[in-house]
Amino acid sequence: MSRPLSGLHVVECASFVAGPTGGMTLAQLGASVIRIDPLGGGPDHGRWPAAGHGTGDSYYWASLNKGKRSISIDLRSDEGRELVLGLATAPGPDRGVLVDNVVGRRWMANDALVARRPDLVHVRVQGYPDGRPAVDYTVNAEVGIPQITGSEEGAAPVNHVLPAWDLVTGMSVATAVLAGVYQRSRTGAGVYSEIALSDVALAGVANLGWLSEADERGHERPRHGNHVYGSFGVDFACSDGNRVMVVALTPAQWNALVSVTGTGDVFAALEPALDADLTSETERYRLRETIAAVLRPWFAARDSATVESELNRARVLWGRYQGMTHVVAEHRAGGHPLLADLALPGGATGITARSPIRWDADHGDPGAAPELGRETDEVLADVLGLDERTIGGLHDRGVVG
Amino acid sequence: MSRPLSGLHVVECASFVAGPTGGMTLAQLGASVIRIDPLGGGPDHGRWPAAGHGTGDSYYWASLNKGKRSISIDLRSDEGRELVLGLATAPGPDRGVLVDNVVGRRWMANDALVARRPDLVHVRVQGYPDGRPAVDYTVNAEVGIPQITGSEEGAAPVNHVLPAWDLVTGMSVATAVLAGVYQRSRTGAGVYSEIALSDVALAGVANLGWLSEADERGHERPRHGNHVYGSFGVDFACSDGNRVMVVALTPAQWNALVSVTGTGDVFAALEPALDADLTSETERYRLRETIAAVLRPWFAARDSATVESELNRARVLWGRYQGMTHVVAEHRAGGHPLLADLALPGGATGITARSPIRWDADHGDPGAAPELGRETDEVLADVLGLDERTIGGLHDRGVVG
Repeated sequence: MSRPLSGLHVVECASFVAGPTGGMTLAQLGASVIRIDPLGGGPDHGRWPAAGHGTGDSYYWASLNKGKRSISIDLRSDEGRELVLGLATAPGPDRGVLVDNVVGRRWMANDALVARRPDLVHVRVQGYPDGRPAVDYTVNAEVGIPQITGSEEGAAPVNHVLPAWDLVTGMSVATAVLAGVYQRSRTGAGVYSEIALSDVALAGVANLGWLSEADERGHERPRHGNHVYGSFGVDFACSDGNRVMVVALTPAQWNALVSVTGTGDVFAALEPALDADLTSETERYRLRETIAAVLRPWFAARDSATVESELNRARVLWGRYQGMTHVVAEHRAGGHPLLADLALPGGATGITARSPIRWDADHGDPGAAPELGRETDEVLADVLGLDERTIGGLHDRGVVG
Repeated sequence: MSRPLSGLHVVECASFVAGPTGGMTLAQLGASVIRIDPLGGGPDHGRWPAAGHGTGDSYYWASLNKGKRSISIDLRSDEGRELVLGLATAPGPDRGVLVDNVVGRRWMANDALVARRPDLVHVRVQGYPDGRPAVDYTVNAEVGIPQITGSEEGAAPVNHVLPAWDLVTGMSVATAVLAGVYQRSRTGAGVYSEIALSDVALAGVANLGWLSEADERGHERPRHGNHVYGSFGVDFACSDGNRVMVVALTPAQWNALVSVTGTGDVFAALEPALDADLTSETERYRLRETIAAVLRPWFAARDSATVESELNRARVLWGRYQGMTHVVAEHRAGGHPLLADLALPGGATGITARSPIRWDADHGDPGAAPELGRETDEVLADVLGLDERTIGGLHDRGVVG
């Protein structure tokens, strides 16, 4: 099946989440992606989550780098560096695309690369714009998210578990690569783009209007517990202890919720008493605690199976709190079209995802798990045109793995 | 200054976060984006955070839709629908690109659009793949994130405040648009891509290896409080009550942390006692509580200014917990290159972001705040070639606003 990016060649020299996510996304859309690692693997090669039982397989590394060809090179040797530069700047209209998160390697600076291929499309991921390192958990603290998470005012910050900024940065990498390719196709000029994780986080909170609001308000937003900010949405416990997240952004969603819980008369009486118009999202937000208190007994009186079928019947916007083992069990039982088994080189079998972007209703192939250096020889021959004897010499001198 | 996507034309008919984020990203990269709204605005038009003082300005809507041209159309009238279809499928090699999050409008189905322009690049955002609605807070619950957030085992889930999946989906929209444009430029064929928020979330946790691990482990990951999973990273309180997030992913970062805190001898003695090798990330993760307990007094004995300057001097990877008002104050004092004031049509001034993707070290122009229907006449004339009299007639009949 033809993928949109068939024909595009990308070289990736990046570790951890953001850069590899960008390359993986492009690979799933059909690009041919070569991942360059140092001999023995980069700092993320064995990262958790990793398979137990001594297989040496990292579920993390395998899943983020699936569908790429792997070449390992001694990045400290002049010969190795020459190979990296050659791969990144190989000729051809659909080559010359590089993703990296390199810091401080003078020989891989953009100007050194552009000297070899002026129309290079080069995307560099950074921590801070000046090159200092940052990670999701540090930039999230700096834009104020953990401080408004949780419910206890004045308590310690509550870190987010999901490295969201890493994932947003990863998709920004894919976007920046394709924007650069678009520009080059129209103008012939290369593009050097840089994306700092700290800027992605700052832009995220600014674009949601949160900085504007902090500026106007002059103090921090109070902690809201599990309530959705600016609307009505909160979690409810059912009689069996299972919980559901219920949201009413639109009038239709609100009406559905009121209707299924049989609370129409209660809210009709409350509106004049509280001088409120609950058809307004802002008003539902203001009165969120009251609304939740009125609705809570309905959920507490029903088991989750009943709650779920009634919410569905009434077309309420809701979601079930469920653990990842539950997600896995559902997939094992029914086969989620997005998910796929991933056979790791050490023998473990993981679960990974196909592309969440569907073409013609299809998620495509997830891509095979990588193995460090598995395609070293193939890449050297394909892209650099090296013959068997030359490649053998590189192995003998320990330049490639 | 030339932007990479100069020349590309995109039509957006979407509300809330994901679709508008995709369009805004493309606009910041230089694309010309037309946003179509229903008369009076879509369901997100006045969403919080909104400016106080009765200006009617939504910081949220203005920031997510800046840099776009706004046209408002009566989507219930045949004449209005014909205008929407005309805009989405207008001729020209760099037109015919549509982003929407439409549900159930038969007249805007992909096949209806493709009948008018076979090479349409069409990206549709969904809640679930079958079109049912979902929002960030419901899909986050369904992939198990709030249940492993916070520190109290067995307690209620802790919702994330940041709508991370919305933002990831928004950048996926930008990627999908550009992948479609790439394919069309090579093959002449259009692309219909769909992206469900629920799939983006499921792919996110799968790609991080979290489902693989849940599958192997057979039970949920325990809650970790503010500790980074699989590595060493946690928050510390300084003597003045300010907190810092400190992370040591690599051996160099770990050595820096040990060195600045003067704890080298302690850990050298602990390693044999605990049968641990703290140069290993996995071992630092396993012994995270012990490591944190050893380090905590160093932070507690110093105020945050001292802590910060010493961590910087030693090149420790760290970040400050700071509120959004602090971020705003720093911007107001020094002018962050990413941030910009945004003058809203009702008179309020917000703070918004330029592109976090930099070209030639530049974040570009943030884009002006939108005003509902401000460019209605201009768009009808430019794209559809309508004359003044025809446009006047559309206004008279209430088809456009």
